[in-house]
Amino acid sequence: MDNLFVIKIGGNIIDDEGKLSSFLKDFALINARKILIHGGGKLATNIAEQLNIPQQIIEGRRITDAETLKVITMVYAGYINKNIVALLQANNCNAVGLSGADGNLIVAHKRTSKVLSFGGDSGEVNYGFAGDIDKVNTEWLWKLLENDYTPVISPVTHDKKGQLLNTNADAIAQEIAKSITDQHKVTLIYCFEKKGVLKNPDDESSVIAKINSLAYNDLKEKKIIHSGMIPKLDNAFAAVKSGVNNVIIGKAEDLNQLIAGSSGTSIRNEQ
Amino acid sequence: MDNLFVIKIGGNIIDDEGKLSSFLKDFALINARKILIHGGGKLATNIAEQLNIPQQIIEGRRITDAETLKVITMVYAGYINKNIVALLQANNCNAVGLSGADGNLIVAHKRTSKVLSFGGDSGEVNYGFAGDIDKVNTEWLWKLLENDYTPVISPVTHDKKGQLLNTNADAIAQEIAKSITDQHKVTLIYCFEKKGVLKNPDDESSVIAKINSLAYNDLKEKKIIHSGMIPKLDNAFAAVKSGVNNVIIGKAEDLNQLIAGSSGTSIRNEQ
Repeated sequence: MDNLFVIKIGGNIIDDEGKLSSFLKDFALINARKILIHGGGKLATNIAEQLNIPQQIIEGRRITDAETLKVITMVYAGYINKNIVALLQANNCNAVGLSGADGNLIVAHKRTSKVLSFGGDSGEVNYGFAGDIDKVNTEWLWKLLENDYTPVISPVTHDKKGQLLNTNADAIAQEIAKSITDQHKVTLIYCFEKKGVLKNPDDESSVIAKINSLAYNDLKEKKIIHSGMIPKLDNAFAAVKSGVNNVIIGKAEDLNQLIAGSSGTSIRNEQ
Repeated sequence: MDNLFVIKIGGNIIDDEGKLSSFLKDFALINARKILIHGGGKLATNIAEQLNIPQQIIEGRRITDAETLKVITMVYAGYINKNIVALLQANNCNAVGLSGADGNLIVAHKRTSKVLSFGGDSGEVNYGFAGDIDKVNTEWLWKLLENDYTPVISPVTHDKKGQLLNTNADAIAQEIAKSITDQHKVTLIYCFEKKGVLKNPDDESSVIAKINSLAYNDLKEKKIIHSGMIPKLDNAFAAVKSGVNNVIIGKAEDLNQLIAGSSGTSIRNEQ
């Protein structure tokens, strides 16, 4: 089976012109099929502020009202996506920028509201136009890859009824990776601000090179892995359980080493 | 040869939610291959104003400085493009939204600055990031059409060196239409605010049904066709000279009749 890399980058790279340009050079040179998924960055927040759209965050999630969705569609699916595509094209990588609506790539449904307790009070949280993924259209993805196009996917999906939805880029990366394991040996790379999962959060040289499910339970018990890293790793294990060959967590600046297996934390079911 | 419709819509439809939705329903039902090209609308101007980006228009052309290009990329390639795609998908039309950078669809170059005289003064006008088209990548377009995807193209191109460029949507429609005449019998439809080319500009029932090049010269001589209609019709004749079968100018609300040939002004070389 052909190798395929699904790589997700976030705001820490997107917001830094120099880092983004250097990352995209490395990405373009990957000598295998590849898909890039990008999140947002500070620009959406800045634009929303300048347009006087108040931003509401509840339990770490941005509430996507209609005006915020407009900004997200403009900035993520428009400005960031098309700039990345133009830079990849300049590096001779035949990139195609897509939202989940394009070619019906990703169908999602509007997240249902949730009753939450706030101290003594409780209330219903309406997440607005946030989308949870139902289905990836693998045939379309496959046609693009087969013809040597490199999909660049923004975190905007649709419900097939005309509504765009704001969708978590990590979740998109996971679902995209899982959807193409029949035809490819898939490596999913999550780029974030650290060199990998660290034994000591203050020491970038303490990267844990490999974690299998046994080791994961042990690291959680010893509280070496905690809080924000747990959903990231749960996602990673869900991906490998669904047929993704390898999930790597590391720094975008180290892309070549992440691909070579000489940097980052690698997650496999058995190793 | 298969029929193919290349249809361009502008701000008068894009700015009106009800009209746009009804137009897209009609468009989705066209029982032939089709490509939609959209211009902008008032939203870009509104967003630019709200972001305090001054808009400069010289000789009817918007000067695209770096900040204006950002707004155009956000609004045209992001918000408008993705909303049109989502609405077409809801109407079971498998739309794919593209800028000229995606799949290297349209390569352009930055318009060179021009020396203009202003009364007694003269000065150099720098159009900024405005792009004039060099090349359409027909192979990519052809692959999409062959696989029953409907391209929806925003007026943003690139120079293949990493720079996005603001490009006239009428020009894109013309170049796209010309590029695929080898494989299709192409009808190019320009939608604008009137029912067609009018004998009497105040009378919507005075549509001239057909114009060939002889009649065109005559209508220009008699000043029935003048000012803004001349570049539109010059473009139309350039298209038919390059192999486009028929150019129709009319109202988006009349799409079905434009396609049936019962509304609008039809431009052919010989008829």
